[in-house]
Amino acid sequence: IESGEKDLVLRAVGDLHESDSGDLIEALDPDLRPRLVELMGSAFDFTALTQVDDAIREEILDELEPETVAAGVAELDSDDAVYLLEDLTRDEQTEILDKLPAPERVALERSLLYPEESAGRRMQTEFISVAPFWTVGQTIDHMRETDDLPERFYEIYVVDPAHKLIGTVSLDRLLRTKRPISISELVDKNHRSVHATDDQEEVARFFERYDLIAAPVVDDDGRLVGVMTVDDVVDVIEDEADEDLKALGGVRSAEELSDSVLYTARSRFPWLFANMLTAFLSAFVISRFEGSLEKMVALAVLMPIVASMGGNAGTQTMTVAVRALATQELGRSNAWRIIRREVSVGALNGLAFALIMGSCAAFVFSNPGLFVVMALAVITVLTAAGLGGILIPLGLEKLGVDPAVSSGPFVTTITDVVGFFSFLGIATLYFHLG
Amino acid sequence: IESGEKDLVLRAVGDLHESDSGDLIEALDPDLRPRLVELMGSAFDFTALTQVDDAIREEILDELEPETVAAGVAELDSDDAVYLLEDLTRDEQTEILDKLPAPERVALERSLLYPEESAGRRMQTEFISVAPFWTVGQTIDHMRETDDLPERFYEIYVVDPAHKLIGTVSLDRLLRTKRPISISELVDKNHRSVHATDDQEEVARFFERYDLIAAPVVDDDGRLVGVMTVDDVVDVIEDEADEDLKALGGVRSAEELSDSVLYTARSRFPWLFANMLTAFLSAFVISRFEGSLEKMVALAVLMPIVASMGGNAGTQTMTVAVRALATQELGRSNAWRIIRREVSVGALNGLAFALIMGSCAAFVFSNPGLFVVMALAVITVLTAAGLGGILIPLGLEKLGVDPAVSSGPFVTTITDVVGFFSFLGIATLYFHLG
Repeated sequence: IESGEKDLVLRAVGDLHESDSGDLIEALDPDLRPRLVELMGSAFDFTALTQVDDAIREEILDELEPETVAAGVAELDSDDAVYLLEDLTRDEQTEILDKLPAPERVALERSLLYPEESAGRRMQTEFISVAPFWTVGQTIDHMRETDDLPERFYEIYVVDPAHKLIGTVSLDRLLRTKRPISISELVDKNHRSVHATDDQEEVARFFERYDLIAAPVVDDDGRLVGVMTVDDVVDVIEDEADEDLKALGGVRSAEELSDSVLYTARSRFPWLFANMLTAFLSAFVISRFEGSLEKMVALAVLMPIVASMGGNAGTQTMTVAVRALATQELGRSNAWRIIRREVSVGALNGLAFALIMGSCAAFVFSNPGLFVVMALAVITVLTAAGLGGILIPLGLEKLGVDPAVSSGPFVTTITDVVGFFSFLGIATLYFHLG
Repeated sequence: IESGEKDLVLRAVGDLHESDSGDLIEALDPDLRPRLVELMGSAFDFTALTQVDDAIREEILDELEPETVAAGVAELDSDDAVYLLEDLTRDEQTEILDKLPAPERVALERSLLYPEESAGRRMQTEFISVAPFWTVGQTIDHMRETDDLPERFYEIYVVDPAHKLIGTVSLDRLLRTKRPISISELVDKNHRSVHATDDQEEVARFFERYDLIAAPVVDDDGRLVGVMTVDDVVDVIEDEADEDLKALGGVRSAEELSDSVLYTARSRFPWLFANMLTAFLSAFVISRFEGSLEKMVALAVLMPIVASMGGNAGTQTMTVAVRALATQELGRSNAWRIIRREVSVGALNGLAFALIMGSCAAFVFSNPGLFVVMALAVITVLTAAGLGGILIPLGLEKLGVDPAVSSGPFVTTITDVVGFFSFLGIATLYFHLG
């Protein structure tokens, strides 16, 4: 179809929602993607490009003429435009920005000055602001007469002459009120606003907490500079959960299914390497007990069970801790209570599994002494797992390191080392193998 | 303060946002919680109860008189009311419902008939619907004159005489249009509606995909029965990501920081038990090589490293697969490509770590033969980890089992068994230990 039949393509693609045309672009052969955009010309909605994988978007933008991109970007809401531009190099950005009309250019340049992942980057700079002395009727007439309104909006903003935010008026309040009433009577001064330099995760928590649909974004002087809307927040929440989940599994958050084999393998290498160092440490601990192992080979059979139980219990606690830190449910106020709880849970399950695993070990090897050794080791390692599983994420958070990314290898190190050391150590003492 | 000083409490708590008063309730002593609600009487906003942990909510509702609860529930939006009622027993529900005015009662009873976690449970039954022949002016006047409007709304709905949904009109469109224009000219017939029996996760994906703020909910006959709003969807997305993350870490999704030690320990037991069986299987594999281990104790030192590398590589692949299945990025159309990719990534990293770990093993034990054994075992286990890490989640999904909950133990079993078996087996053959 991509052999140039513009009309056919337009009919097929023209009416699709941006998410659907995004999917279509991803499914196309890489060569055809920029050609589709060029073929459709001004009928192509660049919003679709915000819906495709980062790598694919960059590829397409690189292929297209700067003029084409500039024309497309000019049609976008400012938040989508920033999203498209922010991953490009400085030079590419300038090349495109220079081709935009002045007001759009200035707005985009200002947004791009805010830190990455801040509200300033995600906000829309199109919004409706009115003076407090306007009436409802004036406001409605203003909206009826102005062509250049934002595509969708849910609130209007009331500002003073210096453009400082006074408050918000939701559209439903506006609609329910008679025309002669002054806006100043409607304004919600308890409006919840966001600061342009706030991190997008903070903004997401804020939206979620107060069930917001939109929130005004203000600068250092309290001036209204933009609006954050809930659809951007939904994406942030999704991305954030995605990051934590992948980080806990040892995968970079940016990893995508479309990444190449070589790229994926290389990006997963560091986590495996960290784990290898951890495993070497365990091996070193085991090697200290070579004498005991030679005298009693049953220990070699049983020791991985102890370490693996510790690893899993540690992962349980760590998962809870990382998630609770991310959602801010775990903080200074309840840290001690949760530490006590996790250690108690570890000890309690330690006791349960001590009985089960001790009995099994003693029975299988017909050696009652193994009950004592196994039981003591299991209690030790599960308690240590509870303690390490909570203290390590808390400690990393305090050091300013993302606990989701880095907790895993440390927790495994503790549970493995404690597991092998306690089991082999207790066995060596109990059976006098030393 | 809770010694009965109503005025003081009212002044302190009365104006808080529901999320803040929810936090306050959680921080209170359990005995004081229902007393606070009773003390505040009709000034207590029951919405706050939707913001506290499930266990705490049930406790409070159990303590309160059904009359108090009924009075509080009557004030709520229908979606919040359903949320409060749905975890109660049938009897408790009936007791409270019987005390409600008839229209509220019927609406709530109908919502409660829909399956758990469906759009019907989460929807709000308060909405504004108008006939297509109304004008913009009539509609605005209707809204100005009606007292019983939903607390917040973003769209109005156009229905035919049989209450079948014709389309939606967003408030901004309404505000921008002159009074004499007919609603039928404004209506967006491409409205995206949700079915009342749709699962909330599907609805969340749908909102996210099309950046919706609200969507009409229709029944089997296409009649408008309610509205889903984005604030509920944000909660669903958050819960869903939470579930997957916790499931991968071996923790029940409903686990909360306020759960007791005993309860938490018991709920984490099954996952640890499954892991124990897995570990026993590994131990059995090791026990088949007791002879080899006796002859060469270095193998006991090195074998946990191999198994642990496999476990971590398997977790990486599994994490990617589980997440991609949850977000529907991985499906029938690309499964083969992703399987090939994961196996290749595993083999490639296997090769890299074969060189590193083989060299280390040979050097530390001054035994060049260990290079060959270690290298072959590492390649085998990392390739198997890639294969198992993708095939198991795919297979579980096909069987209708949640891959996030159940993949872990299976993947670990595979990587452990393959790890120990390949390393000890290759060593036995290579060094003629059999």
